[in-house]
Amino acid sequence: MNKGRLEAFSDGVFAIIITIIVLLFDLPKGSHLSDLKEMIPLFLVYLVSFFIIGTHWANHHHLMQVAKKVNGKIIWANHLYLFTMSFCPLVTGWAGRSGFDEIPTITYVITMLLESISYIILQKMIVNSHDCVELKRVVDESKKEAVTIALELAALICAFIAPVRWLTYILLVAKSALWVIPDLRMSRMFDESNKTED
Amino acid sequence: MNKGRLEAFSDGVFAIIITIIVLLFDLPKGSHLSDLKEMIPLFLVYLVSFFIIGTHWANHHHLMQVAKKVNGKIIWANHLYLFTMSFCPLVTGWAGRSGFDEIPTITYVITMLLESISYIILQKMIVNSHDCVELKRVVDESKKEAVTIALELAALICAFIAPVRWLTYILLVAKSALWVIPDLRMSRMFDESNKTED
Amino acid sequence: MNKGRLEAFSDGVFAIIITIIVLLFDLPKGSHLSDLKEMIPLFLVYLVSFFIIGTHWANHHHLMQVAKKVNGKIIWANHLYLFTMSFCPLVTGWAGRSGFDEIPTITYVITMLLESISYIILQKMIVNSHDCVELKRVVDESKKEAVTIALELAALICAFIAPVRWLTYILLVAKSALWVIPDLRMSRMFDESNKTED
Amino acid sequence: MNKGRLEAFSDGVFAIIITIIVLLFDLPKGSHLSDLKEMIPLFLVYLVSFFIIGTHWANHHHLMQVAKKVNGKIIWANHLYLFTMSFCPLVTGWAGRSGFDEIPTITYVITMLLESISYIILQKMIVNSHDCVELKRVVDESKKEAVTIALELAALICAFIAPVRWLTYILLVAKSALWVIPDLRMSRMFDESNKTED
Repeated sequence: MNKGRLEAFSDGVFAIIITIIVLLFDLPKGSHLSDLKEMIPLFLVYLVSFFIIGTHWANHHHLMQVAKKVNGKIIWANHLYLFTMSFCPLVTGWAGRSGFDEIPTITYVITMLLESISYIILQKMIVNSHDCVELKRVVDESKKEAVTIALELAALICAFIAPVRWLTYILLVAKSALWVIPDLRMSRMFDESNKTED
Repeated sequence: MNKGRLEAFSDGVFAIIITIIVLLFDLPKGSHLSDLKEMIPLFLVYLVSFFIIGTHWANHHHLMQVAKKVNGKIIWANHLYLFTMSFCPLVTGWAGRSGFDEIPTITYVITMLLESISYIILQKMIVNSHDCVELKRVVDESKKEAVTIALELAALICAFIAPVRWLTYILLVAKSALWVIPDLRMSRMFDESNKTED
Repeated sequence: MNKGRLEAFSDGVFAIIITIIVLLFDLPKGSHLSDLKEMIPLFLVYLVSFFIIGTHWANHHHLMQVAKKVNGKIIWANHLYLFTMSFCPLVTGWAGRSGFDEIPTITYVITMLLESISYIILQKMIVNSHDCVELKRVVDESKKEAVTIALELAALICAFIAPVRWLTYILLVAKSALWVIPDLRMSRMFDESNKTED
Repeated sequence: MNKGRLEAFSDGVFAIIITIIVLLFDLPKGSHLSDLKEMIPLFLVYLVSFFIIGTHWANHHHLMQVAKKVNGKIIWANHLYLFTMSFCPLVTGWAGRSGFDEIPTITYVITMLLESISYIILQKMIVNSHDCVELKRVVDESKKEAVTIALELAALICAFIAPVRWLTYILLVAKSALWVIPDLRMSRMFDESNKTED
């Protein structure tokens, strides 16, 4: 199987997810500045979500590039990943329009946590499809995934405590910032492993 | 004609279909856990639909890959197939938001049945475009299509009987599970037929 | 300029146009067969629109394939064409939900007429970008464009006359049927012209 | 990193942005000509937005084509650019449905201004990724970016003054008209710089 269509399909889903969030902004009924002010909470959550989705896309892009071939396990890990991603518009809209209430914020963090977990699963499937002990060791030794999950769990705890709930969103931005520059060391390993096997 | 654009167009349609279902979840008005609970039936049908659409995509991906060239018949069989697929968001939303009522569930199963039938037609068109008796025999002998239709007819019957209506959704998941791993035997045949003719 | 991205962009627009029409079906409030019956007029117009858009896509696919390179004129003729196509969901929804009323049907036909005209303009731009007298003659002699416009004008007239308004939709299907199989003669000419110039 | 997926992702976002604006036209409740008349302001703003987005797409297409490789800075400048583009449907709908009121028009112009600024940033990132003094000089000497920003600031001022508010939209169309034909001089420079380095 070639991976071109898996990438094209994923790109389509990413593009739609990141774009339709804007449809959740109801068109203001009036034409006043106050109508814009009402949108600020949703705008802020949209900014956070755009950053998170953009980071996910860049890393998915990078991960797929180093995948040698696409097998059934990778397709289904990718489907699971896109499934969790598909809830972004919904939870963004709910968190933003409720004005950062408790349950919507918790739902938001849990969705982000599930996205990270399914990303790690997808990464595992792709690493496993390469037959290279060296590579597996490098990925296993990476601390980035553990730090990500830890930051998201901290964000989840903050979501329960009203006075520090804003920290939830800061922590989620922080965990995404870790992924802004895709892991070059792993990429170099993949390259070497490709060369060795070819 | 090259098949790249047919794949790109189909991927676009698949990506939109699978993603806009989420737009059918109305944003909750309140911020309570009970608002999430109300979404559970739709969430469950969405899960089933995502699995079915994901399986369809993987098999369509696979089928297209073995197609040698694209003719008018294949384009129109593909259009018919995408037309039936395009009703997924609508019937998913109706079945989920009605809480698995009789008519919405029946509509859901019939849509899935029409999707399977149009997929089988598309497969037939692609097989026929290959000039290979051996290949046609393998496809004709395949029992998978018949089992799929039988499972969907059983699901349709269950939809009429309130106490076992939940079985409808189980049976649809079961028929999709048959297709999780695309038919490798057929694929190998296609490969051989390609080699022979080239 | 390479034409790959123009095709990808156009395919994205086509895929979205053809898919979001389904969002115009309001989810039924009840769970009765009568809720489905109410959708029949919109379903019928959707069927017509899907056939028309599908035919447009197949011909656009075919036209682009024979284009040698993409210049500014072709990009803008293509934008104009996609602009007229983008009204398909709106006019389909209006015609269907109004139950084939006079003004919505007229709006529907005029949109289809504008789509045909902008398609013919795009074709002209692509033919002109080839430097081949022979090819221009073949395209100029083609009667298909004139018959299409004539059928659409007849459909427009029928839209004004209540008792034969259903003929409007039949005539639009008929003009699309003309384009189901892309013009092979022109395609052969393009091929030859390409060979000669290369 | 290859740039194919960045283009595919951007094309998907462009295609969705340009298409979903149509969803902002509420389906008319009645079937009268007056229902269409009500849509005229939104139709006019949609026409302006389609022209602006179409021009952006053509220039993005062109800019990406001359990019040699994609690095982290380019990905994130592109994300910022798509983020500002993603507000097009919202501000188009608000400006159109409010009938060109003051605040919606101001919001519309500011969005267009932010799109231009982020486009210039993206262009800078791509120029910087090429190691060529000559090329940088050409881009630095280009007056087009300054004229664009000046026209948009003039449009912003007009938005505050009711009697000349229509000029706002004329000025925005004028600044886009500057970009209808992508900058060929820069393109030639890129080509030369590519040849020199290869």
